[in-house]
Amino acid sequence: MTQLDDLDRAILRLLKEDARLTISELAEKLNRPESTIHFRIKKLQERNVIDRYTIILGEDLRPSSLALVYVQAKTPIIEDFLEKYLTHIIKTLSMLPNVLLVARSGEGIVVLIGDESLDKIKSFVEETIEVLPGLERVEFFPIDKIEKGSDIAGFLVDV
Amino acid sequence: MTQLDDLDRAILRLLKEDARLTISELAEKLNRPESTIHFRIKKLQERNVIDRYTIILGEDLRPSSLALVYVQAKTPIIEDFLEKYLTHIIKTLSMLPNVLLVARSGEGIVVLIGDESLDKIKSFVEETIEVLPGLERVEFFPIDKIEKGSDIAGFLVDV
Repeated sequence: MTQLDDLDRAILRLLKEDARLTISELAEKLNRPESTIHFRIKKLQERNVIDRYTIILGEDLRPSSLALVYVQAKTPIIEDFLEKYLTHIIKTLSMLPNVLLVARSGEGIVVLIGDESLDKIKSFVEETIEVLPGLERVEFFPIDKIEKGSDIAGFLVDV
Repeated sequence: MTQLDDLDRAILRLLKEDARLTISELAEKLNRPESTIHFRIKKLQERNVIDRYTIILGEDLRPSSLALVYVQAKTPIIEDFLEKYLTHIIKTLSMLPNVLLVARSGEGIVVLIGDESLDKIKSFVEETIEVLPGLERVEFFPIDKIEKGSDIAGFLVDV
């Protein structure tokens, strides 16, 4: 397990907020020498504590509506088929730009869909997911207001 | 709506992959003058197309298990109480470090929980969520393997 001390955590927290902060800005904020900050960041990168640097896209590019959908397939007659079928659905969904996240979940699939309205998402679910043969259960959870983790759409959305 | 041309999108895609790329590296990759790249990035920031720069944390800091939980409260006798009750639950859950995302979802709440094992998440749900009075429905969806959006835990996790 990764050992982090208070300084490491303080650096990570600041970089999460703004990854463009320079070594000297970090040094000033944390009241430590630049050499220390430089060394720590180097180590954090080498140890892959910092995996990568990225951008978060703003409101205008984010889908205005989000919904989670859980899809469960019927246990099929032919063994081994379920696995292949779910893999096929996951691959197909992953290619669609309004599908932000796809994951296996037990006997089913969890999908996060983003689009310009909840109606559009509902139509998408009806026309693309509910028509799939052999489904036992499709649950729809609209995401009305994100209280924690609200930048998720700006992180996941494609350009 | 935000207008983006091919160059804007190409810049955004590269910065999503690696936000540390310099102006001159981007200019070389995209075969454009540095002044053009500089101007475009400036505009993308001013227009808030780029909302902010951040870091994604590596495997070791990410919870090894994730699960989505949907919680629905009973429609209560006292009108207006449901809203206050859900707001209270959302606030409480938001403060917990293993709760990565909390959102209102219709008459309920969606929560993304991350911890070192699925058993730990299940215990947390039993001991912290299922004990809440007045719940009508608690659904548990383990996230076994994320096929699209897999960096989500490295983005959402706290340090």
